[in-house]
Amino acid sequence: MYTFLPMSSDWWPDLLSYLHTAPTQKERATQGEGKMQKDLSLSDSDGSKFPPLVVIELAPDTKEEAVAWLLNRIRDKQQDGGAELLVEQLTPEDQGTEKDNPNVYLVGASRQRLLMGAEDVGLFKEFTDGTVRGFTCANKHNFKGFQGDGDTFLSMAECQYIIKHELDTLRAKDEAHVPGYPKTKLYPGKSLIRRIQSKGILVQVFPLHEKEELKRLSFSWYKSFKMSFQPLDDIRHYFGEGMALYFAFLEYFTLALIPMALIGLPYYLFDWEDYDKYTVFAGFNLVWCTVILELWKRLSASLAYKWGTLSRKKAFEEPRPGFHGVLGLNPVTGRKEPLYPNFKRQLRIYLVSVPFVLLCLYMSLYVMAIYFEMEGWVLRLHDEEPTFWTGVLVFIPSIIYAVVIEVMNLIYRYAAEFLTNWENHRLESTFQNHLVLKVLVFNFFNCFASLFYIAFVMQDMVLLRQSLATLLITSQILNQIMEAFLPYWLQRRRNKKAQKRVIKKMGDKELPLSDQVKLEAYMSTYLGTFDDYLELFLLFGYVSLFSCVYPLAAVLVVLNNVTEIYSDALKMCKVFKRPFSEPAADIGVWQLAFEAMSVIAVVTNCALIGMSPPIKSYFPESETQLIMWVVAGEHLLLAAKFILTFVIPDIPKDIQIKLSRLEFESLEALKKRKMLEGSGIPKTNQ
Amino acid sequence: MYTFLPMSSDWWPDLLSYLHTAPTQKERATQGEGKMQKDLSLSDSDGSKFPPLVVIELAPDTKEEAVAWLLNRIRDKQQDGGAELLVEQLTPEDQGTEKDNPNVYLVGASRQRLLMGAEDVGLFKEFTDGTVRGFTCANKHNFKGFQGDGDTFLSMAECQYIIKHELDTLRAKDEAHVPGYPKTKLYPGKSLIRRIQSKGILVQVFPLHEKEELKRLSFSWYKSFKMSFQPLDDIRHYFGEGMALYFAFLEYFTLALIPMALIGLPYYLFDWEDYDKYTVFAGFNLVWCTVILELWKRLSASLAYKWGTLSRKKAFEEPRPGFHGVLGLNPVTGRKEPLYPNFKRQLRIYLVSVPFVLLCLYMSLYVMAIYFEMEGWVLRLHDEEPTFWTGVLVFIPSIIYAVVIEVMNLIYRYAAEFLTNWENHRLESTFQNHLVLKVLVFNFFNCFASLFYIAFVMQDMVLLRQSLATLLITSQILNQIMEAFLPYWLQRRRNKKAQKRVIKKMGDKELPLSDQVKLEAYMSTYLGTFDDYLELFLLFGYVSLFSCVYPLAAVLVVLNNVTEIYSDALKMCKVFKRPFSEPAADIGVWQLAFEAMSVIAVVTNCALIGMSPPIKSYFPESETQLIMWVVAGEHLLLAAKFILTFVIPDIPKDIQIKLSRLEFESLEALKKRKMLEGSGIPKTNQ
Repeated sequence: MYTFLPMSSDWWPDLLSYLHTAPTQKERATQGEGKMQKDLSLSDSDGSKFPPLVVIELAPDTKEEAVAWLLNRIRDKQQDGGAELLVEQLTPEDQGTEKDNPNVYLVGASRQRLLMGAEDVGLFKEFTDGTVRGFTCANKHNFKGFQGDGDTFLSMAECQYIIKHELDTLRAKDEAHVPGYPKTKLYPGKSLIRRIQSKGILVQVFPLHEKEELKRLSFSWYKSFKMSFQPLDDIRHYFGEGMALYFAFLEYFTLALIPMALIGLPYYLFDWEDYDKYTVFAGFNLVWCTVILELWKRLSASLAYKWGTLSRKKAFEEPRPGFHGVLGLNPVTGRKEPLYPNFKRQLRIYLVSVPFVLLCLYMSLYVMAIYFEMEGWVLRLHDEEPTFWTGVLVFIPSIIYAVVIEVMNLIYRYAAEFLTNWENHRLESTFQNHLVLKVLVFNFFNCFASLFYIAFVMQDMVLLRQSLATLLITSQILNQIMEAFLPYWLQRRRNKKAQKRVIKKMGDKELPLSDQVKLEAYMSTYLGTFDDYLELFLLFGYVSLFSCVYPLAAVLVVLNNVTEIYSDALKMCKVFKRPFSEPAADIGVWQLAFEAMSVIAVVTNCALIGMSPPIKSYFPESETQLIMWVVAGEHLLLAAKFILTFVIPDIPKDIQIKLSRLEFESLEALKKRKMLEGSGIPKTNQ
Repeated sequence: MYTFLPMSSDWWPDLLSYLHTAPTQKERATQGEGKMQKDLSLSDSDGSKFPPLVVIELAPDTKEEAVAWLLNRIRDKQQDGGAELLVEQLTPEDQGTEKDNPNVYLVGASRQRLLMGAEDVGLFKEFTDGTVRGFTCANKHNFKGFQGDGDTFLSMAECQYIIKHELDTLRAKDEAHVPGYPKTKLYPGKSLIRRIQSKGILVQVFPLHEKEELKRLSFSWYKSFKMSFQPLDDIRHYFGEGMALYFAFLEYFTLALIPMALIGLPYYLFDWEDYDKYTVFAGFNLVWCTVILELWKRLSASLAYKWGTLSRKKAFEEPRPGFHGVLGLNPVTGRKEPLYPNFKRQLRIYLVSVPFVLLCLYMSLYVMAIYFEMEGWVLRLHDEEPTFWTGVLVFIPSIIYAVVIEVMNLIYRYAAEFLTNWENHRLESTFQNHLVLKVLVFNFFNCFASLFYIAFVMQDMVLLRQSLATLLITSQILNQIMEAFLPYWLQRRRNKKAQKRVIKKMGDKELPLSDQVKLEAYMSTYLGTFDDYLELFLLFGYVSLFSCVYPLAAVLVVLNNVTEIYSDALKMCKVFKRPFSEPAADIGVWQLAFEAMSVIAVVTNCALIGMSPPIKSYFPESETQLIMWVVAGEHLLLAAKFILTFVIPDIPKDIQIKLSRLEFESLEALKKRKMLEGSGIPKTNQ
């Protein structure tokens, strides 16, 4: 995650119009994979032409010696501890205005260097025999799509990922501090980029968009309103595996909801008050939410295998940029690096973070109490003198409460990030886990506490249905406004204002590189898939926890998800800087979160079934008997759920066979090599 | 698992007396690790002397060409597809009787071959820097304990494991069948040993005992009645990691029970009828069974790291010996091998095995019903005319039922093994999983069904306590008799009968090698730790499920376990052939089984708490309220249990650091090597 820049900048209109120019005649007919951008080449005076991949922006007032030192370290040979990359200053073609930052650099690499880097980062590619294997330069010609010098072998996103990796692993040698900045201390092994970034010398590092590629992708993704799946391979090709898995999950979730929506629709249309059938619906619900999560694991494994991330080993994790501590010896690497005592972190977590979260939960309960007070007051008003306006008024408290919930979630999100940062976790993964845990617990509580209260304490199914509907619809409308309409509206308004200037500047000729770089530098930075997954998680909660009393929920969520796909696609292609691609083999901690939700859903659905009149009528004399049976049934279902999780293999059989074959082959090769070494006789002699 | 031989053999007395001779003066004072047996050396006529490690016994009527072919294949060089081992026929020193089998062969290997084999099987050994790493011949001198030629580097158990691995992986080349046996078909890649074993040509393969080593081990293990831990390292050294982990678990389980026993004892002595305190005991119980299982995982990881099995990769699994099918192409290895269609196996499982198991469960219920009938009849008899004899009679049905349960378990065990074999699983691990599942479900049902019925249907706590006590005590007594007293008694009886012959034959001189081999060949074969773990599993059930109504259970189980340690040690050292050592990193599927039991224990203990009078008195007016609270508490406890499982790391931090360091070092080494290769300049040139 790099720095976040505000959208309100003078470059905004140019950018948007640039991105919205109609496809030119030059648009390639060939859909060639991994073609590096040829129309983006540095035409520098010193003759060193290379396709720029990544942009480094340093602070405008950076000392010259620091700039020279950094560029040298990036250019240095690898055996001298450099990154061996190509880097040039961006020279604007038309003289920029005063406030233009001159310290913008373009980074690229030779083809050979990129292939070596692909081996370094452990890229998996398709082999000629159809399996997916770790790329090595030694047998590069055995990989599918490797032609000639391997010009088109790596996609631009992969090249950018490699550059980022090489920059991130550029380490201090014997420098004690950054030249020109005596206070910015360094020690051997410290990542240079992370240090100068945390000190504000480096403003941002971002990969460049590919105009042609982006046009094609956005056309097949969301511009053509056809009934088809998303172009996941193209999305992965452009944005990387992490992003593609998010969109795959969003699509899968939407499709999985369709049976539920189809069953729910007639329930809504015909049998609004027939509790008997709701019991069937609840039963369906809890089988559904177990099965779809298990099947998703298999689908995600298939995708990850195809994309080469399934068997890829995780890289050795470095301390996150914000981590600070006292210099000490890392017991794993044996290097000097900052250490932060674990007990201090634990103290911060248990003495500050946990009480803070509990306080927030209490506040959320307090707000809920106010809502119920308001609700009661309005209902009394309506009962005393029912008019049209009081009838409308009845819905107002729920809507206000839904808005307040969204606002509280938003504020809490920032507080949680601040606190987790302050806890000073060493690794990005630990940081993320603690952040996700904090946010999930609060959001779950904040969104669903009132529904639990209505369902199980008040036991008022009519109010539950009404609250669920209001919460779901309001939060969907708010989300859609925040994600889709707001950017559209901003874009429209600015387009009009800047129309003349754009026409004058661009005509129908191509935008020069320097302008493209500057436009993109001012775009917002995409902060990762966290908030998108969180939204899906809450929607999943609305559908699975209580939807048996409001079968229309699935229909609403399907509609929401369809627009979500379009608005998310739009924001990725038009609103944000291109993000660095993140290799991912699964949706990580979210799989766990969704599974936890589905366990809770079994409990709530069983309880709702137990409370329904037809079930109650089976045990007219003894409520105890009823509860015992419901509890027994719930335990059996939970047990069945866990057994199902064990029984369904997480990886489909055909992929399991491919993986085993690779493992077997490498074992055989090793054995053969050892036997030859052991006997000392080359094989040809026999 | 090799063939099982009956204990009643003429060799039995000699064997026992041989094993019981007092330590000779030659007993080594040095406790040197891994010393190969020098006192066991073949003194063959052809001058090829080697320490024998493993015995191969072929059927007495094996055709000569088959013997010659097998010996050649074992002796052949590895590059010619052989095992490159040393093998000699056993020549008896005194002329054996008629029935002596001449086809007994001793297998050994040169030191160099064993070290190469250690690398092949992926043995992990301690490095000079204190970490544990995969052994390689290339840097053998950097491993701790490698002196000179590595004479004492490998323990005899390790050498025997290597020999077994090399024999098992001896594969057919172009032979179409075993010479002399046209019906015993072979195909390229088929394991020879497995084929001739399943056809009965090979009677058995077993490793030899080490007399001196065994004497020392048994002395420190069970002969000296001192209060100390078991010599786990020595056990592992002699019997391998799988066995050592079993004994470690047995000891850990016993120690973990002591706090419970200490709390339970005063409950038994003073407050027999105070339900209030039982609630506290039940609460303690369910925390206890979660925590000890989590801690065991950490302890087992520590042991496995020390013994080098934690990060050892599992070998590629071959089809199990009994597996049969139609020749086809294995999709993983690309070799021709028998394939058995999965749907046929599924049909056998679902149409035969599952109904059979259900039938057995029904029979178990039927027996239970008879028991309750008997119980009721006896009680009526006692109530009508209470005499001393009817008072004794009251206990008889429980005792009979306990014996019947044990007998049914035993019979079912054989049936389950037969059925699972018939299901024709391809891999030993799948076979084991299906067998364990079948046996566990039935044993759980058979042992605990009556207790569940008494506790939750009859709700008779006095009867529950009485039944629990009877079941537990009877099954313990039966087990101890079967495991300890029976072998002792057999041994005594035979010792007397054969005393004279033994004294005449042995005197105080050493037993010749040929006699030792024959004695051991007639010992019973140890069939693995399955039954031992099963016994512990059931004991764990008695302690954790209901012990809050019978706190003395823990005391009884502790006493049982202490004798169990001694009787198990005795049977391993004296009664059975030495088993091949099995590398194991954990207790495998049993961890899961114990965890499942602890989840069920949470449910039963919560229910028992809910049924106790003091808790009931909190909700005098509403039983529904009471149940709701108990169910809510149970759900919270289950949730806490799962969270605890996540939060407690499975591997202790110091071992995690050591593992990460190794991974980091190998990554760094790889990077350095690649960089040098990439630059093409040797490092010295710079």
